Amino acid sequence: MEFIDLRSDTVTKPTDEMRKAMAYAEVGDDVYGDDPTVNKLEKLAAEILGKEAALFVPSGTFANQLALFTHCNRGDEVIIGDDYHIVQHEAGAAVIIAGVQLRTIETDRGALIPEVVEKKIRKVEDIHYPKTGLICLENAHSNGRVIRLENYEKIRNIAEKYKVPIHLDGARIFNAATFLKIQASEIAKYADSVSFCLSKGLCAPVGSLLVGNKEFIEKARKKRKIMGGGLRQAGILAAAGIIALEKMIFRLEEDHENAKYLAQKLLNFDFIEIVEDVEINMVFFKINKQFEEEDFVKYLFENGIKINPSDDGIFRFVTHYWIKKKDIDYVIEKMEKYFTAQQ
Amino acid sequence: MEFIDLRSDTVTKPTDEMRKAMAYAEVGDDVYGDDPTVNKLEKLAAEILGKEAALFVPSGTFANQLALFTHCNRGDEVIIGDDYHIVQHEAGAAVIIAGVQLRTIETDRGALIPEVVEKKIRKVEDIHYPKTGLICLENAHSNGRVIRLENYEKIRNIAEKYKVPIHLDGARIFNAATFLKIQASEIAKYADSVSFCLSKGLCAPVGSLLVGNKEFIEKARKKRKIMGGGLRQAGILAAAGIIALEKMIFRLEEDHENAKYLAQKLLNFDFIEIVEDVEINMVFFKINKQFEEEDFVKYLFENGIKINPSDDGIFRFVTHYWIKKKDIDYVIEKMEKYFTAQQ
Amino acid sequence: MEFIDLRSDTVTKPTDEMRKAMAYAEVGDDVYGDDPTVNKLEKLAAEILGKEAALFVPSGTFANQLALFTHCNRGDEVIIGDDYHIVQHEAGAAVIIAGVQLRTIETDRGALIPEVVEKKIRKVEDIHYPKTGLICLENAHSNGRVIRLENYEKIRNIAEKYKVPIHLDGARIFNAATFLKIQASEIAKYADSVSFCLSKGLCAPVGSLLVGNKEFIEKARKKRKIMGGGLRQAGILAAAGIIALEKMIFRLEEDHENAKYLAQKLLNFDFIEIVEDVEINMVFFKINKQFEEEDFVKYLFENGIKINPSDDGIFRFVTHYWIKKKDIDYVIEKMEKYFTAQQ
Amino acid sequence: MEFIDLRSDTVTKPTDEMRKAMAYAEVGDDVYGDDPTVNKLEKLAAEILGKEAALFVPSGTFANQLALFTHCNRGDEVIIGDDYHIVQHEAGAAVIIAGVQLRTIETDRGALIPEVVEKKIRKVEDIHYPKTGLICLENAHSNGRVIRLENYEKIRNIAEKYKVPIHLDGARIFNAATFLKIQASEIAKYADSVSFCLSKGLCAPVGSLLVGNKEFIEKARKKRKIMGGGLRQAGILAAAGIIALEKMIFRLEEDHENAKYLAQKLLNFDFIEIVEDVEINMVFFKINKQFEEEDFVKYLFENGIKINPSDDGIFRFVTHYWIKKKDIDYVIEKMEKYFTAQQ
Repeated sequence: MEFIDLRSDTVTKPTDEMRKAMAYAEVGDDVYGDDPTVNKLEKLAAEILGKEAALFVPSGTFANQLALFTHCNRGDEVIIGDDYHIVQHEAGAAVIIAGVQLRTIETDRGALIPEVVEKKIRKVEDIHYPKTGLICLENAHSNGRVIRLENYEKIRNIAEKYKVPIHLDGARIFNAATFLKIQASEIAKYADSVSFCLSKGLCAPVGSLLVGNKEFIEKARKKRKIMGGGLRQAGILAAAGIIALEKMIFRLEEDHENAKYLAQKLLNFDFIEIVEDVEINMVFFKINKQFEEEDFVKYLFENGIKINPSDDGIFRFVTHYWIKKKDIDYVIEKMEKYFTAQQ
Repeated sequence: MEFIDLRSDTVTKPTDEMRKAMAYAEVGDDVYGDDPTVNKLEKLAAEILGKEAALFVPSGTFANQLALFTHCNRGDEVIIGDDYHIVQHEAGAAVIIAGVQLRTIETDRGALIPEVVEKKIRKVEDIHYPKTGLICLENAHSNGRVIRLENYEKIRNIAEKYKVPIHLDGARIFNAATFLKIQASEIAKYADSVSFCLSKGLCAPVGSLLVGNKEFIEKARKKRKIMGGGLRQAGILAAAGIIALEKMIFRLEEDHENAKYLAQKLLNFDFIEIVEDVEINMVFFKINKQFEEEDFVKYLFENGIKINPSDDGIFRFVTHYWIKKKDIDYVIEKMEKYFTAQQ
Repeated sequence: MEFIDLRSDTVTKPTDEMRKAMAYAEVGDDVYGDDPTVNKLEKLAAEILGKEAALFVPSGTFANQLALFTHCNRGDEVIIGDDYHIVQHEAGAAVIIAGVQLRTIETDRGALIPEVVEKKIRKVEDIHYPKTGLICLENAHSNGRVIRLENYEKIRNIAEKYKVPIHLDGARIFNAATFLKIQASEIAKYADSVSFCLSKGLCAPVGSLLVGNKEFIEKARKKRKIMGGGLRQAGILAAAGIIALEKMIFRLEEDHENAKYLAQKLLNFDFIEIVEDVEINMVFFKINKQFEEEDFVKYLFENGIKINPSDDGIFRFVTHYWIKKKDIDYVIEKMEKYFTAQQ
Repeated sequence: MEFIDLRSDTVTKPTDEMRKAMAYAEVGDDVYGDDPTVNKLEKLAAEILGKEAALFVPSGTFANQLALFTHCNRGDEVIIGDDYHIVQHEAGAAVIIAGVQLRTIETDRGALIPEVVEKKIRKVEDIHYPKTGLICLENAHSNGRVIRLENYEKIRNIAEKYKVPIHLDGARIFNAATFLKIQASEIAKYADSVSFCLSKGLCAPVGSLLVGNKEFIEKARKKRKIMGGGLRQAGILAAAGIIALEKMIFRLEEDHENAKYLAQKLLNFDFIEIVEDVEINMVFFKINKQFEEEDFVKYLFENGIKINPSDDGIFRFVTHYWIKKKDIDYVIEKMEKYFTAQQ
C-alpha cells in the first residue's frame, strides 16, 4: 500500500523522469571538479537564483550551516528570527560548526522587524563587543508564510548601511516565488547568499544548493570539505536536481491550490480552526474538541494516511507532488468517519 | 589631581585597609590548593551566598563564562536576557569558550518574563533540537534595576519543572540585596550558581567568585585551568577580597543614597530626564537640549571629572566608595556652569 | 573519449547494475527512518563488519569526523598516526567539528607503534591533563600498506588496559581484508567503530558507513544531523551501496593483481623505482631521471590518461574496476614513447 | 613552620620588597587603560624582550593560549613539541580556546628538529589541507634543558621561508638567558611572540606577559577580554612584576648554582642517578633502589620538606629564591637518614 503522506514535502519520492535521468547520468569525481552533471546543476542553480555561482551540498541544514561558516568568523554575532529553522531545527549546529553567537529575535509571523534588526547590530568597535557578522532571513517561513519584498527592501537597506551580509534560508524559496508570482531571483537579490532544497517540494531525492558570488562559493567549497560534504559521483543526484529546477519549480502552484482546497474542506468541520493563512503548501490547524491525539494519528495510519503529531495542539498537513485532490477527499472522508464515531 | 570618576564602580581603587591586608597576606600556590587566604575567601564567599563551595577567578566575565562552560555541554542552548552582560559585553565569549547557543529574549526592564522562558525551553528530545542547558539571570541588572524575588520564584519553578539549572550573574548582587534589604543568599537561593565581583562597588582591585555546590565547583576548577585562570599566590588579591566581603558589602547603602542625591540634583536641570528608577548606585539620564557631547565630556575632564560618553543619548553616572556628597555637589556645579555658558 | 584514470579509486563510476538498482530503488524519508533501502544497507554493513549497527553518511571524511565527534568529548585527546587521512587530508576538521586535540605520532609505514601509543595515553586524572578519548587506526593505509593483525592485537590490549576506545578508518578495509585473505570483520573486531567507503574501489557513486554498537550509532545519528548529514530519499544511493557490499568486495583481488602487474611493467624502466610494497591497488614510484613533470602529466592527459602530480617526487597510480590489463599496457606504451622521445 | 618547598618555582612567595611595592602601587582601571603601574610593567617587559608591545595576563597558560588564539585562525595547524607545556599541561585548551589543530612532534631533549618542522609545514594550498598557522618553541624547556640559539636560527629560517610565525613559550626565558649568558631579547628575537611568567623563579605572586609587535598585542587585548582576562586595578600585581623584571632576573644564577650543588650532593648517594644535565634550577633524578615512594614523600613532608611525587620514577627538585644552600644540606641530611633507616 502506498501511503498518503501529509507529514512534510520532504517525503516526496523522485519522479519516474528523475529516476531515469539518474540511471543515465554522466558522472565524474566532483572533488576533482570532474562531474559534468553537478557542474551543470550548479550553473543552472546560479542562473535561476541570479547569483554568480552555486555549490551542491547534501542537505538543507548543511547548506545553511555552510553559509554561516563561510560568511562569519568564529565569535561573530548572527541576527536571526527565533522561529527560524536554523534556530529551531538544526540541533545547535551554528555554535558547533560556524562557532557563531545567535542573537535570536521575535518575528512578525516569520518576518524580521527592521527596527529590531537595526537595534541589534553592533555599530561601534569595542573590546566588549562581538562583530555582527550576518543577518539571516527565511522564505517561505516554515510556518507556511511568505515574507513580502517590502520587508526585504528595508532589511537590505539596513544591512548595507552597516555593511552586514544577508543569508536567506530559501529551503522553499520556489514556493515563496510561486505565491508572490515572481522569479525566485527577485527574492534572492536581497540576500548575499541563498540556500535552497531540491528534496522538498521539488521531489529530488537528496541535495540542496548554496548560491552566492564567486569568491563566497570558492570559500564555501573548502569549508564543505571540512564538513565532510565533498562527494564523489554526485552527478547521480544532480541529475534529479536538474529536473527539479527545469520542471518541478513550475508546478508548485498545484500544491498550493491543493493546500487551499484541503483548508476549505477542513473548515467544514465546525470544530476545526485554520491558524495561519494558507500561502504555500501547508495547512496549520487546531482541533477544538476533546479527542485522543495518539488514537487519531493511529487511526489515520491504519487507513493509509501518515501525519505528524501536533506541535502543542497545532497540526500541520503538507501537500506535494504525490498528493492529489482525490487523496485530500479521502483524508477528509476518513476524518469525518473518525470524529463521527467519537461522538 | 585625583579625578571624580563617575564612569563605573569598576574604577574603585582598593582602600588603605585592603592595601595593608594585601601587604601582609599569608600566601601559597593556589594551583596546589596551598593558599590559605584564597581558601579563606572561598569559604567565606560560599557561606555568604549560602552555597557549598566557591572558586576565585580573575574577573566577572571569567566567572560568567566559567559558569556556562561548567553547566553546559557544547551545543546546549542557554536562555538569557538580550540585554544581559553575557550577551552585550562579553565579546561573544559564550560561543567560543563554552560553545553554547544563546537563545536571547527581550526582558521586562532586566527581568526575564517567566512565560517566555517556559516557551523557549526544549521540552522533548528530538534529533533536531539542542538541549536547553541553562537559564541565565542577572541581578542587579546593568541598567541599574533590581529584579524582584517574585520573578525569581516563578523562574525557579519553571527551571525545576524542566530540570534546567540557573546561573545568576550577580556581579552586583550585594547592591541588589542592599536595595531589597535582604541577605545576598536570599537572592542566590534561586540559582544553582552565582558569580559576583569583588572589584566593583566592593573596591577590591581584582577578582570575582563563582559559587555553587561542591561537585559544580570541583568541575569548574578544572575548567578554570583550561581558561588560564589557575593563579599562584592569589592570596594577595584574596586578602582584599576578604575585606570586601567582611566590610564593604555593608556600606553600599551609602552609594545608593548618593545616587539618589545625584538624581535629585540632576532633576533641577529642567532639560534633564532620569530614564530609569534609581535603585542602586547608578543614575541614567538624558539631556534634552542641543549640546556638543564631546565638548561636554572634555569640559568635565578638564575640571577633574571623568564620565563615559552616552549610549545613544543616555548617560550613566555611577556612585561608589570614592564618590562623596561633596563630589556630587561639585559635579552639579560644573554642569551648571557648562550649560549656562552654552546659552 | 573515456579516460584511463589512475588518479584514485575515488574516480570509479557506478556499474550498470548499480545504475539500474538506483533507478528502481524503493525509497522513503530517511530522517524519519522510513527508507527501506537505507535500512537494508545499514543492516548489511553492520553484519559484514561484525558490529551491532551502522549509519549511512555522505563521505569518508564525514564518517571519520562523525566518529571523533561521537566517541569524544570536546577537549579530549586523540592518539593518531601523523600520516593518517584524518590528519593529512581532512582540512583540520577534527578541531572544528569534534573539537578534539590530536596527538600525532610517527608511524611505522602506517602502523602505530604500540609502545608509543601506550606512552601517550594519559594515565592519571590531573587538572593539567586532557583525557585520552580515542585511538585512531587506518587500514589499508593511504600509502598502500596493510597493517597486520599482530599489531592490532597489541594496540587493542593497550586500549583495553586504559579503557580508551578505538576507531578504525577503514576507507579501504575491504582491500586490506582481501590482501590478508580474511573477512573484514576480522579486522573490525579490534576497533569499537569503523568507517568505510562505498565510493572508492567499490564503485558506488556516493556514500560511506560508520559502524559500531547500538548506543554509539544512536548517538552518531543525532550528531549526523548537527553536521548536516541527515538525507531524505538516500535509498537511491544505498541501492548502489548494497551492490557494492554484495558483489564488489569480492572482486578487489583483481585490482590488486593489476597493481602488481603495473608495478612489474614499471620496473622495466631502469630509471623507475617502486617505493612501497604493492599490497593493495596502489603503486608508488619515483622516476630517477631528469624530466619535466608538468609536461609528462600533460602528455599522458593528451593521450587519454589521467594521473595526479607527484607528491614530492613520488607518483601514485591506482587501479580499480575501470582499469583493465590492456589499459595498463597502453599506459606503459605511452610512457615508453614519452621517455624515449626525451632522450 | 616554613616548609622547604622543592615542588616547583611556582611556589615562590613575593619578597618583602614586592609586598611593599604592592601596598603602595598607583593603580587605575586597566580595562580603560588607566592603570599606570600596568602600563609601566608592559613597557618594561616589551623593552627587555626587545619587542614593540606587551600585555599583562593572569597566568602562563593564559599567555600561551592567548598567543595561539591571536596568531591563528580556527582550524589552523600548529607545529609543536610533543613534550611542551602547551601539549602536556594546559588541559587541552588549544583546541577549545584557539581552536587549532596541534601537530605534535618528538623533540630532541626539548629542541624541535628543524628538518621535521620543515616536513610538517603545509607547503601548498589544497582543499584537503589546513593552513600551518604557527610554530611553537619552549625555552627553557620544562625538562630543565635550555635550547641553543643555533637551533633557533635554523627554525627561524624555515619559518621565514614558509611565512609561518613563531611563538616562544618563555615561561622560564630568564633562566635560559642566564644559562646562555645572554640577554633574554637575544632569544626572543627568533620568535614573533613570547610569553613569560613573573610568578615562577621571579617570585611575583601572579601574572605573566605576552610580548610581540603592536598589531599583535592590540589584537591580543581584545582576545584577552574574550578569555575573561581583562582585570581592573591590576597595578597591584604589576608592582611586584616590575621588581621581578628590575631585580629578580639578575639573581637566577644563584638558583642554578644551588641546583648544581644539590645535584652534586645527590650523586653522593650511590643509588641516585641524575637523568638530565642541570642547566637551570631543576634537578631530575632516579632512585635506583627498592623503596616506598609514598612513605618517602610523607617522611620528608613530616620533616618540613615538600616534594612532588615522581613522574614514572623520575623526581624533579626545583630550586628558587626561598631555597638556600643550608636548606639543601638539610634535605640531603634527611634523605640520608631516611635511606639509612631503610636498610
